[in-house]
Amino acid sequence: MTNRVETDSQVLLEDEALRDGLQMESRIFSLEQKLQFFRMLQDAGIKRIQVGSFVHPKIVPQMADTDELIRAIDLQRGPVVSALILNDKGLERALKCAVPHVSMSVSVSDTHSRKNAHRPAAEALASMTRLIRQALESGLDVRAGLQCVFGCVYEGRISENAVLRAADKLIATGATEINLADTTGMASPDAIRHMVHRFRQEFPGITVSLHLHDTRGLGLANMFSGYDAGVRSFDVCTGGLGGCPFVKGAAGNVPTEDAVNMFESMGIKTGIDLKATCQAVAFLEKVLGRVLPGRMKRVLDNQQVCTWQ
Amino acid sequence: MTNRVETDSQVLLEDEALRDGLQMESRIFSLEQKLQFFRMLQDAGIKRIQVGSFVHPKIVPQMADTDELIRAIDLQRGPVVSALILNDKGLERALKCAVPHVSMSVSVSDTHSRKNAHRPAAEALASMTRLIRQALESGLDVRAGLQCVFGCVYEGRISENAVLRAADKLIATGATEINLADTTGMASPDAIRHMVHRFRQEFPGITVSLHLHDTRGLGLANMFSGYDAGVRSFDVCTGGLGGCPFVKGAAGNVPTEDAVNMFESMGIKTGIDLKATCQAVAFLEKVLGRVLPGRMKRVLDNQQVCTWQ
Repeated sequence: MTNRVETDSQVLLEDEALRDGLQMESRIFSLEQKLQFFRMLQDAGIKRIQVGSFVHPKIVPQMADTDELIRAIDLQRGPVVSALILNDKGLERALKCAVPHVSMSVSVSDTHSRKNAHRPAAEALASMTRLIRQALESGLDVRAGLQCVFGCVYEGRISENAVLRAADKLIATGATEINLADTTGMASPDAIRHMVHRFRQEFPGITVSLHLHDTRGLGLANMFSGYDAGVRSFDVCTGGLGGCPFVKGAAGNVPTEDAVNMFESMGIKTGIDLKATCQAVAFLEKVLGRVLPGRMKRVLDNQQVCTWQ
Repeated sequence: MTNRVETDSQVLLEDEALRDGLQMESRIFSLEQKLQFFRMLQDAGIKRIQVGSFVHPKIVPQMADTDELIRAIDLQRGPVVSALILNDKGLERALKCAVPHVSMSVSVSDTHSRKNAHRPAAEALASMTRLIRQALESGLDVRAGLQCVFGCVYEGRISENAVLRAADKLIATGATEINLADTTGMASPDAIRHMVHRFRQEFPGITVSLHLHDTRGLGLANMFSGYDAGVRSFDVCTGGLGGCPFVKGAAGNVPTEDAVNMFESMGIKTGIDLKATCQAVAFLEKVLGRVLPGRMKRVLDNQQVCTWQ
């Protein structure tokens, strides 16, 4: 079907359900439930898992046990374990529990930055570059990210040049992976293609990964477009968790299982077992007591033949 | 954002909610409700609307009043009105109520054809080509279609050559628009691209349109890929109606409103008003008493800024 060359035939899917998913849930998972879920993802073959964030437990109580969770995981084998940090205190906690990989990100929308991070985008960026340098000097693997890259609900379109300027500052720290986030789900396949082409032209040798929200149903279309433009790393959430649980019909991240199905159906290897991932979806749905937006669990439940894996 | 040429900047979206959507619903819409919904689609700017099918009322009671519905519509103005026919009796009814445009299709999967149309695919194709010739001779505009083009739940992958051979027979009748249907939602963006490229190479001058089911969440990704490969006509269903209402989580067609958002966000004109389409979604949701899978109504309901239209 595909005539891509061999080196093009695999992608890295980073599951963020434990962080971007669970941080939005009113139901707080126990440490044991998080561990059980982590092991299901590990058994399914997920290669990188963002297990939580180091934020103030009063602000995001769902993430309060991130340190403890990481200590309970065997970091010497299995997937790369990652966590999100936002400030010095977060970096301190990350180093203390020996998580090997951290993500950090700032918004390119000034209004969004002021509302979400309570400071102007330029100030947030300056402070983040300092933090990234510290993390790199401490020996951590770092992924630096930009939020609202493809649009902001307050500011509308964001200029590509502004994104590239911000990325340039992140890259100057020594970070070699830049995550571009469609925080609002406003990206189009064309916008993704255009941005990725410019980014890769401007920063050869830097890994670009995409974090795509499915708010307008374009998550997989944007992921395909990103792949087509050369991206090989994508964030996903088991079941399509994420988004806002208080808004009926609001959508989260691209469901891991649906991304696996898309890539595998095109002969692109994910290294992830679809059935095992759907068992992890079933676990989440049982704990949360609701049906999640991902499609492939339903397809398998209905025993519709899936010929791709 | 986009650097496409002007002639590339529009698409035809054919809404099939009145046929492919309502035929699956246990709740039967009254003639007045169908008319009201049709007028909402017309007011939203939809250019072609498939309003029903001429099938036996005992088998598909939801479509029993298709003739009456067409007679109640002013066919001289507004969108092109189309209906689905399957046999001689259907053609007779189509001519009697003066519908100007008809769709006909057969499956390229032999097993699916035997199960769904109760005869081998080759026999169904032969009989359909005869029917298409009759319809064309009677002065009708005809769209000829193939089902299960991108996979079959019974047979798995379908060979591209088999699809092209069947298309060749349809085109030999004089039909100038061929609809390729992903009946099972098994297409991938790569498979769409490859098939469309081969089709357009083999049959220059023939319009190819796509009918994409969203079972695996790939409806919009496949639509984008089809557009990218040169397709300019797509089937959609308001709200994402269709699929099987008895299977929880089963998905229907690509939601009209989400397709409108995708294309308009890329600067490609649909001629369709997003807000008006979402009002049609609201009407369907009220009559059916459930939330439909399309995303854009929820986005607008939550007053998230939509900057593209």
